[in-house]
Amino acid sequence: MKLSHLLLAASAALLALPVSASVKLSPPTATAKAAPAVRIDPTYWWVGMKNPKLQLLVNAPGIGGSTATLASYPGVTLEGVQKMESPNYLVVNLNIGPDAKPGQLKLDFKGSKKLTYSYELRARNADPQRTQGLTQADFIYMLMPDRFANGDPKNDVVKGTRAPRVARDSMYARHGGDLKGIQNHFAYFKQLGATAIWPTPIIENDMPKASYHGYAVTDCYKIDPRYGTNAEYQQFVKAAHADGLKVVQDIVLNHWGSYHHLFLDKPAADWFHAFPKFTRSNYNAFALNDPYGSKRDYTLFNDGWFDTTMPDVNQGNPLVATYLIQNFLWWVESTGIDGYRIDTYPYSEPKFLMQWGQAIQEEYPKLALFGEAWEGTEAEQAFFAQNIFPPVNGFKSNLPGVLDFQICFAVADALKTENGDLSKLYHALQGDWMYVDATRNVPFLDNHDMSRFYSVIGEDFNKFKTGMAWLLTLRGTPQLYYGTEVLMKNFSNPDGKVREDFPGGWAGDKTNYFVSRPGQAGEAFDYISKLANYRKAHPVLSSGKLMQFIPQDGVYTYFRYNDAGECVMIIANNTKDPKKVDGTRFAERTDGFASGVEVVSGATVSDLKTLNVPAHTAWVLELRK
Amino acid sequence: MKLSHLLLAASAALLALPVSASVKLSPPTATAKAAPAVRIDPTYWWVGMKNPKLQLLVNAPGIGGSTATLASYPGVTLEGVQKMESPNYLVVNLNIGPDAKPGQLKLDFKGSKKLTYSYELRARNADPQRTQGLTQADFIYMLMPDRFANGDPKNDVVKGTRAPRVARDSMYARHGGDLKGIQNHFAYFKQLGATAIWPTPIIENDMPKASYHGYAVTDCYKIDPRYGTNAEYQQFVKAAHADGLKVVQDIVLNHWGSYHHLFLDKPAADWFHAFPKFTRSNYNAFALNDPYGSKRDYTLFNDGWFDTTMPDVNQGNPLVATYLIQNFLWWVESTGIDGYRIDTYPYSEPKFLMQWGQAIQEEYPKLALFGEAWEGTEAEQAFFAQNIFPPVNGFKSNLPGVLDFQICFAVADALKTENGDLSKLYHALQGDWMYVDATRNVPFLDNHDMSRFYSVIGEDFNKFKTGMAWLLTLRGTPQLYYGTEVLMKNFSNPDGKVREDFPGGWAGDKTNYFVSRPGQAGEAFDYISKLANYRKAHPVLSSGKLMQFIPQDGVYTYFRYNDAGECVMIIANNTKDPKKVDGTRFAERTDGFASGVEVVSGATVSDLKTLNVPAHTAWVLELRK
Repeated sequence: MKLSHLLLAASAALLALPVSASVKLSPPTATAKAAPAVRIDPTYWWVGMKNPKLQLLVNAPGIGGSTATLASYPGVTLEGVQKMESPNYLVVNLNIGPDAKPGQLKLDFKGSKKLTYSYELRARNADPQRTQGLTQADFIYMLMPDRFANGDPKNDVVKGTRAPRVARDSMYARHGGDLKGIQNHFAYFKQLGATAIWPTPIIENDMPKASYHGYAVTDCYKIDPRYGTNAEYQQFVKAAHADGLKVVQDIVLNHWGSYHHLFLDKPAADWFHAFPKFTRSNYNAFALNDPYGSKRDYTLFNDGWFDTTMPDVNQGNPLVATYLIQNFLWWVESTGIDGYRIDTYPYSEPKFLMQWGQAIQEEYPKLALFGEAWEGTEAEQAFFAQNIFPPVNGFKSNLPGVLDFQICFAVADALKTENGDLSKLYHALQGDWMYVDATRNVPFLDNHDMSRFYSVIGEDFNKFKTGMAWLLTLRGTPQLYYGTEVLMKNFSNPDGKVREDFPGGWAGDKTNYFVSRPGQAGEAFDYISKLANYRKAHPVLSSGKLMQFIPQDGVYTYFRYNDAGECVMIIANNTKDPKKVDGTRFAERTDGFASGVEVVSGATVSDLKTLNVPAHTAWVLELRK
Repeated sequence: MKLSHLLLAASAALLALPVSASVKLSPPTATAKAAPAVRIDPTYWWVGMKNPKLQLLVNAPGIGGSTATLASYPGVTLEGVQKMESPNYLVVNLNIGPDAKPGQLKLDFKGSKKLTYSYELRARNADPQRTQGLTQADFIYMLMPDRFANGDPKNDVVKGTRAPRVARDSMYARHGGDLKGIQNHFAYFKQLGATAIWPTPIIENDMPKASYHGYAVTDCYKIDPRYGTNAEYQQFVKAAHADGLKVVQDIVLNHWGSYHHLFLDKPAADWFHAFPKFTRSNYNAFALNDPYGSKRDYTLFNDGWFDTTMPDVNQGNPLVATYLIQNFLWWVESTGIDGYRIDTYPYSEPKFLMQWGQAIQEEYPKLALFGEAWEGTEAEQAFFAQNIFPPVNGFKSNLPGVLDFQICFAVADALKTENGDLSKLYHALQGDWMYVDATRNVPFLDNHDMSRFYSVIGEDFNKFKTGMAWLLTLRGTPQLYYGTEVLMKNFSNPDGKVREDFPGGWAGDKTNYFVSRPGQAGEAFDYISKLANYRKAHPVLSSGKLMQFIPQDGVYTYFRYNDAGECVMIIANNTKDPKKVDGTRFAERTDGFASGVEVVSGATVSDLKTLNVPAHTAWVLELRK
């Protein structure tokens, strides 16, 4: 997510919804929900975790003055308690030794009143299908769960939420999509050739306005009831795995929603970054590693709020850091998801990011991790992934991969004008010298914050195919945004325009692209499907080595190849004129091959020495001896 | 130099000069000059150099079959001789021990005929004024010696050269400028506030065509006779030092002119990169560190010729590498110059660059070294300077600084349109995190290969002042291109248009900007002069720390400051509207100061909390308590 909420704020005036000016930084207590008698986060835990330490955040009215004791439990010790600024919280530190068995811990709190809490320690789930991670062989389908498909109309309107309504005609209201809706279309993803699903956040966003986007979390341990229950999410992941699909969970480390229970009733003021008056982030990650940067720009970037409704969590507070780390261990362990997509990655505190990444990867080395680092240069993007740089200002990212904005910008640059510039795409890949392993990056053409790819390129279907050919043959794990495969279009101002319902996702939809895709929508789907399924069947196209040649005369050429002698040539004429390309330039890769077969059309290219590439055409050629 | 000669080649047809098509890659022997009986490079050497080894390249007809002996000389030993492919060369390896005294070595060669050569070993010159290096306090005036001023009409036409003529009306012919012409105007440079002179190469370019630019060297040990003699150059450097000016020598490592005596009569074929037919460089340094690059693109970049008349020297040949290293030790030792500007730096072989840089810096740690790395991104530019990256493909640059093309592009980007984008300038500085020490970079606004700054910015005098304010207050050692200080203009296609004669450099010139600069030319000169002389007198503006703030609302602000409490604020409104700027944003730097004095105009800015900056205005404010 980036800046999209600015647009929202800007359009709030039109909608007569007070957003920016009237925001209350102190909790709107009148509307705060009554807390349960005792709440402990994490809501349960496991024996046998690598890190034996467990920090419980106990929340109950007046609990802060209590003592805590743990009834004897083999392998588990209570290491201390910690009072908070708020009387309603107590931190209890446990040590879960390696020999501890699953069971119920009995915690007794004595203060103004007595409380007993039975805290569950579970056995870990060793199912090998869980947490497979991602590889370049995967192809991620990204969607917005509220806008994709409504599988369970019963959860559309949930009583007790702050916005108990659906309104498909409003781009800011909930539309009713849910986990069941996604699950109903697993076959569709597979037909398309996708192997992984990335829904935008499915965690509770019990916000009064525009909660559908999911980036304003209000309860870190709960699936939003409009999408399903925690148990249904666990089932969803299990069903996906059973169906050969992986699941990426979209998470936010930097901020929560302003109706988060820990913001409405703060454990301590220093759980959040606060300013005398509402202070927005400057959205400028360059401030982090600017050798000449001011403290003010640095602090504004890091501690300023992403939006009025999104309090900036103070990860410099070790209790908060641990709260977040445990929360994201919890989701992996409780669900078996395959990866995390980390929203607004650079906005979190650098030291916390290192700490968080280390903790998550120590426990789940196979888990895929890629972050949103919406930066303007190859170097700045690489700065937020594992890279070859020494620490800068004490920061050295341990994030395996990033969403590859450079490729996104470069493809748009190449295709949005006639005879567009190919050099940025060449440079976007060349810049990989700065990464430890750029194959863990996630290339994409559009997403929920950006104008849709088909609109960006002027609704030119040939250019569309060229973009898709690049997306599915470059290094990394490609990501497609829902609907782009059927040529959904629009520009991102306002962003609701690129978050429209997928046609057919709702009972009674006049158009149903799940069952019938007439015309060019079908051609688009089929192009992607053919190429993605070819890619699935031919690992050389995903895990093969890559060799690119400097773009020349509007033609860009690269190869995926392996030691087994397989080679796929991707050659794109990005001009309005047919091009006769001297193929001898590529002898390093074409020597030993006589011809090529275009893997989508099936057409044969019989001469690799002189390639006659039609205008605005990309070929994906399987080379033949 | 970059690509400028392509333009030259392109325009050759217009001039009916055969350049590209008719070039002869084999030496045009008919026009080759007769070699002296025996020539040895280096032409002389010194005792007491750090590296005791000395490789003599002996050139005489048939000498290859000879034996060589050294008459007894205390401290000097002959370590061996090496035959070359050509019978006309012999390499003699000497060791000049630490106790060797100055004198004449007697070398006897016996073969088909006997030869005796008296080789001079000199004492080193310990004058502390020699080789002072450059610091940020310097300000470099760059000029083309053929086009700046004609101080000695007697050397305009030199008999025996391949183009014994001057023609001021031709942009490709010699115009007659020379070292004496430069020397005649030392006072002018000082009046302007410059502290160093960088003439484009003054080494012999005895080429039949377009030799005036100097980048096609034909004798590595000789000043071009149209500029002066070697002795005159030594005097020139000495006179400059005596006058408080430093001298930067412009050198080319990558290529020589096709009439270089070692190309006309090659010691061996492998002293040059050769292809079956003329093969041009692809001019794409990205190929060097592209993890996916082809060998072909790499080789074409490195070994391809810069132009038809510029054979690519094979620095992978250790004899060639040593020849080049010794040559550039020789110029420093024989003249006392303060720095080298290295042309087409990335085009040389990476391993040679490391070897060359190490050898030069071991001998002359104070010598300034900065290279031309005309690259498109901060990271790629930093790749060619001392940087924080680990070696990539075995290359780790040891070059202290580079010409800062990113700043040049960024300033143009900011100023060439109305309300231009300031973010590139901010990013160009922010990118300094990738350097070991970016203060050794050389910012500039234009040069001999680029459209003149004043034309780029649409001849807008306010923008001109803004650009100059930035140039002279940013980190690094700024460089000004001759004539830009008096608003010389033109676009660089063809490049001769930006290499026009400086008005007043020739006797009888109707306009003489050395003595009178009416109108805006004078205002421009005075603006630079005032600011540069202020800079000279106030080291905080050059060596002070730098703090920049993210550009906001078309206004870019940064500070130079030091621990002594001095602070200069540079604030530029780059829009067509006056701006009221909230100065409290800069409290980190302005706290403790009450007002500012604009150092050029002398105007006082009495309120630092609210700054009313007129449209298109840059202020350089000395802050006052």
